[in-house]
Amino acid sequence: MGLEPVVEGDDWRTGVVIENAKATLAKDKNHEIKAVCMVHNETATGVVSDVEAMRKAMDEVGHPALLMVDTISSLGSLDYRQDDWGVDVTIGGSQKGLMLPAGLGFNSMSDKALEAHKTAKLPRCYWDWSDMLKANKDGFFPYTPAANILFGLDEAMDMLFEEGLENVYARHERLAEATRRAVMGWGLETVCQGGIYSPSITAILMPEGHDADEFRKMVLKRFDMSLGTGLARLQGKVFRIGHLGSFNELMLLGTLSGVEMGLDVAGIPFSKGGLDAAMAYLAHPDNAAANAKAAE
Amino acid sequence: MGLEPVVEGDDWRTGVVIENAKATLAKDKNHEIKAVCMVHNETATGVVSDVEAMRKAMDEVGHPALLMVDTISSLGSLDYRQDDWGVDVTIGGSQKGLMLPAGLGFNSMSDKALEAHKTAKLPRCYWDWSDMLKANKDGFFPYTPAANILFGLDEAMDMLFEEGLENVYARHERLAEATRRAVMGWGLETVCQGGIYSPSITAILMPEGHDADEFRKMVLKRFDMSLGTGLARLQGKVFRIGHLGSFNELMLLGTLSGVEMGLDVAGIPFSKGGLDAAMAYLAHPDNAAANAKAAE
Amino acid sequence: MGLEPVVEGDDWRTGVVIENAKATLAKDKNHEIKAVCMVHNETATGVVSDVEAMRKAMDEVGHPALLMVDTISSLGSLDYRQDDWGVDVTIGGSQKGLMLPAGLGFNSMSDKALEAHKTAKLPRCYWDWSDMLKANKDGFFPYTPAANILFGLDEAMDMLFEEGLENVYARHERLAEATRRAVMGWGLETVCQGGIYSPSITAILMPEGHDADEFRKMVLKRFDMSLGTGLARLQGKVFRIGHLGSFNELMLLGTLSGVEMGLDVAGIPFSKGGLDAAMAYLAHPDNAAANAKAAE
Amino acid sequence: MGLEPVVEGDDWRTGVVIENAKATLAKDKNHEIKAVCMVHNETATGVVSDVEAMRKAMDEVGHPALLMVDTISSLGSLDYRQDDWGVDVTIGGSQKGLMLPAGLGFNSMSDKALEAHKTAKLPRCYWDWSDMLKANKDGFFPYTPAANILFGLDEAMDMLFEEGLENVYARHERLAEATRRAVMGWGLETVCQGGIYSPSITAILMPEGHDADEFRKMVLKRFDMSLGTGLARLQGKVFRIGHLGSFNELMLLGTLSGVEMGLDVAGIPFSKGGLDAAMAYLAHPDNAAANAKAAE
Repeated sequence: MGLEPVVEGDDWRTGVVIENAKATLAKDKNHEIKAVCMVHNETATGVVSDVEAMRKAMDEVGHPALLMVDTISSLGSLDYRQDDWGVDVTIGGSQKGLMLPAGLGFNSMSDKALEAHKTAKLPRCYWDWSDMLKANKDGFFPYTPAANILFGLDEAMDMLFEEGLENVYARHERLAEATRRAVMGWGLETVCQGGIYSPSITAILMPEGHDADEFRKMVLKRFDMSLGTGLARLQGKVFRIGHLGSFNELMLLGTLSGVEMGLDVAGIPFSKGGLDAAMAYLAHPDNAAANAKAAE
Repeated sequence: MGLEPVVEGDDWRTGVVIENAKATLAKDKNHEIKAVCMVHNETATGVVSDVEAMRKAMDEVGHPALLMVDTISSLGSLDYRQDDWGVDVTIGGSQKGLMLPAGLGFNSMSDKALEAHKTAKLPRCYWDWSDMLKANKDGFFPYTPAANILFGLDEAMDMLFEEGLENVYARHERLAEATRRAVMGWGLETVCQGGIYSPSITAILMPEGHDADEFRKMVLKRFDMSLGTGLARLQGKVFRIGHLGSFNELMLLGTLSGVEMGLDVAGIPFSKGGLDAAMAYLAHPDNAAANAKAAE
Repeated sequence: MGLEPVVEGDDWRTGVVIENAKATLAKDKNHEIKAVCMVHNETATGVVSDVEAMRKAMDEVGHPALLMVDTISSLGSLDYRQDDWGVDVTIGGSQKGLMLPAGLGFNSMSDKALEAHKTAKLPRCYWDWSDMLKANKDGFFPYTPAANILFGLDEAMDMLFEEGLENVYARHERLAEATRRAVMGWGLETVCQGGIYSPSITAILMPEGHDADEFRKMVLKRFDMSLGTGLARLQGKVFRIGHLGSFNELMLLGTLSGVEMGLDVAGIPFSKGGLDAAMAYLAHPDNAAANAKAAE
Repeated sequence: MGLEPVVEGDDWRTGVVIENAKATLAKDKNHEIKAVCMVHNETATGVVSDVEAMRKAMDEVGHPALLMVDTISSLGSLDYRQDDWGVDVTIGGSQKGLMLPAGLGFNSMSDKALEAHKTAKLPRCYWDWSDMLKANKDGFFPYTPAANILFGLDEAMDMLFEEGLENVYARHERLAEATRRAVMGWGLETVCQGGIYSPSITAILMPEGHDADEFRKMVLKRFDMSLGTGLARLQGKVFRIGHLGSFNELMLLGTLSGVEMGLDVAGIPFSKGGLDAAMAYLAHPDNAAANAKAAE
């Protein structure tokens, strides 16, 4: 199955093609493009895009647009570096890798973005950075904040630093690799093809002729597990597994068991053995890494 | 492996042999035996004993002893009937099938037991039924009760009745059956041999030459799962899986995945496929039931 | 102390003067005014405005503007009737009378408002009613909702209906009356003068020469109580007591004790006896009501 | 009102009279008395007894009995020193000064007590120190522990040490002194007369002809506050205020307000002004201390 491109040359299954963006920017001699907006880790598809490469491409063609990045499903789950990668605006949320309820959004802005903000003409009130920055200086907020989640954030930070960010990221990579091995074991396809597979979410294509949402409903009913729905154009064609935040090997295998049994119950053509493949990997992830190295 | 009997003729692997108890009672012409104490569902071994049959045996030999039953790991997980089965004292707790923290113990007494209590000579204070019954009449307790757990109990009851006790018991049977199929699939043995397998807990023998507690420690470290230890004479020889209370198919399969990977990592001889057997059953438990029926 | 008017003729201490608004609307022959926005219960001042009277005034001058009402600090604490009063847009939040954390905002719209929305030109995305209504139809949300607060809302509704809305409103009135009697007892002034006193919040003027924020800081430090700050032009001149939501007589008296001791500690000129006045009322609120009636 | 003595010469209103105990011990030439059991802070009466003085008296008459002390309502609320005071067995619980639910009991034993335990003949199982000590060595328990409260205990300890034990004790003294001033202000009597007033609990005598439990019921109904009941022989004659644990000035004043209004509503003869007296003290506790010093 192919997914028609949104940006010419791009595809939902491969993430942002830096060369396409670069070409578009190079053509924009009058700098009418004000911002390059990209998603670090696309929740709908399970594809990571290369933010650092985008910065490099923008610099190479000397384009002054702001680089704005959505990190909703990557923050706290995979490495991200606003300053090192020259990002102007980062957008994050509390409800994924930070292991909190929905309720806090984060913005991190470069000086250049703050400068642009001063002359921005989009009407705004609640989202206004100036009001927020002014109040934040004294530890306050211009509007009633979700104070309970701020306390939770404090604890979430402690948990992440106690585990160590390197270990947190490695754990997400490990669980994502196990998930992909299960998908391959089942003879199914991930939406992501080539490029960088997401460590935090995996989107899986249903075989033709089967409705992903019917499948999801049945799994919820039979096994009390709510799989992620296909978003936008992927609705009905895709189901998604989030493997991020406070999540470990056995939670993942419980999840994958539900999918494997669900495929069986729904009469969808698949190969058994997805779960076995995930377990074989998770029992000996270092062997797998060593084998991969030896095979190079 | 055999486990030497405690009561002559009995065995830890088969539960209470009613005939043995009956013979002992029949010999007790002077009624020096004051109470027959039995465990409904033995937490250490995963064996259920037949309380109703014990009552029948006692009646047949006309022995007036009290029948006292420990239901700690059965209450709320498998069918139990104090009145129908003629039990004099039932002992239960909040921390297993009732899905609550440890902190509440329950006693249910027949009139005959209350009568015996009046002349009982064991010194007692905190455990005294008279003090408790007197205060309970007005909704109070003779000592500070674990009031928070009483609120929890109220909710737990609602949950059990909302699901329906029949469904609750069937769920426990189903998860227990899946666990036993996994154990067979691994080529391991359950402690329970013949008799009635526990719907709430399964105890599994480690192959000779392997220490169950070393295994448990490794599983805890690698997969953050705490398996039950072997109790008393089973220490080091057995690990246990509790599959009771607020527990479902995917939680069980996550648990069994941890065991299967643990066996692999520990280098313990076993067959892969335990998890597959559990999944095959849980995806189609009705087929399994139908097949069993057809085979009769 | 007087507070200069925002709308000509209006005053922060008396709430919306309907006649002023009516006069303004009557002059607007070309209907350039698109909406009349008012606050039902002003959090900053503790003043209630008469929404029903505003509707009547708008109808009398035949002005087609939308009537939009902020009920943040009134919803669930004082009677409010969108349909009966002909309100087009009501705005509410979870964090006050509904006794929940901040995190949910509510909009309730008339058909007329929905019609206007179709041609509204303010750029919007997250706040767009169309996206929300479309998803809500099936019980979903266009963006990740604060699901935990939705469960809380369910429970909050149960609590309010169990107490009975009439009783909830009467409780708020009673606590507000007690607060005002305490303020009078101390010889201080409420911001609200005449008009309708808020049942949910009371704003109190500091005597000249004393900084309200210094007072608040001291009370927080000495008595671990965080009084509300003066907002906007009232900053430093006012402190506020919220007496809404899950709140009762003894919580209020604990609060008022903190204020009375704080005034004493801070050396602010005041009369003792505020708390006594509040207690005298709360012990016999019906007497007070009867006396008031007799005095008419 | 007087309360007849339990031990000859003792009175419920003054606590343990050391001289009486000493005389009794001196007469026990054959050391038939095996243990002196005393309550550090009597929950029923609000009287503290002098543990250190008891040790001294026992030593002076050279009596070898064990000294056993109940610290249920003192542990974590007032200073207590097992080793310095030569206590052999201390009994404590989680549910008062440690700010936790009921569910954990504590025993702390001297070597001498452990020695006596070896030859003690009272039948025991659940309460057996040997089983507990053996399991505790490896961080375990012989029976299922209230693990949730152990986590809570960890946090409670952090809270107490963060505040500082000296400050915790001073806070309890301050709140108790304020409570007694309120009682005096109302013209009522505390049960405790002379001796050491409890910093954690105050028991108050109802005026003759008024039933304390009727009063408690009405206060609960009208003001949603549950006052402590009179225990044993004090039933109906006394109500009690606990001012211990996670408790501060404003919580106490809310509590005292409920009592003052309750007295008013119930038509019990009393003087208003109890709350004012408590506030006057709590606003300036250091002045009060200085005045007390000056008056010496």
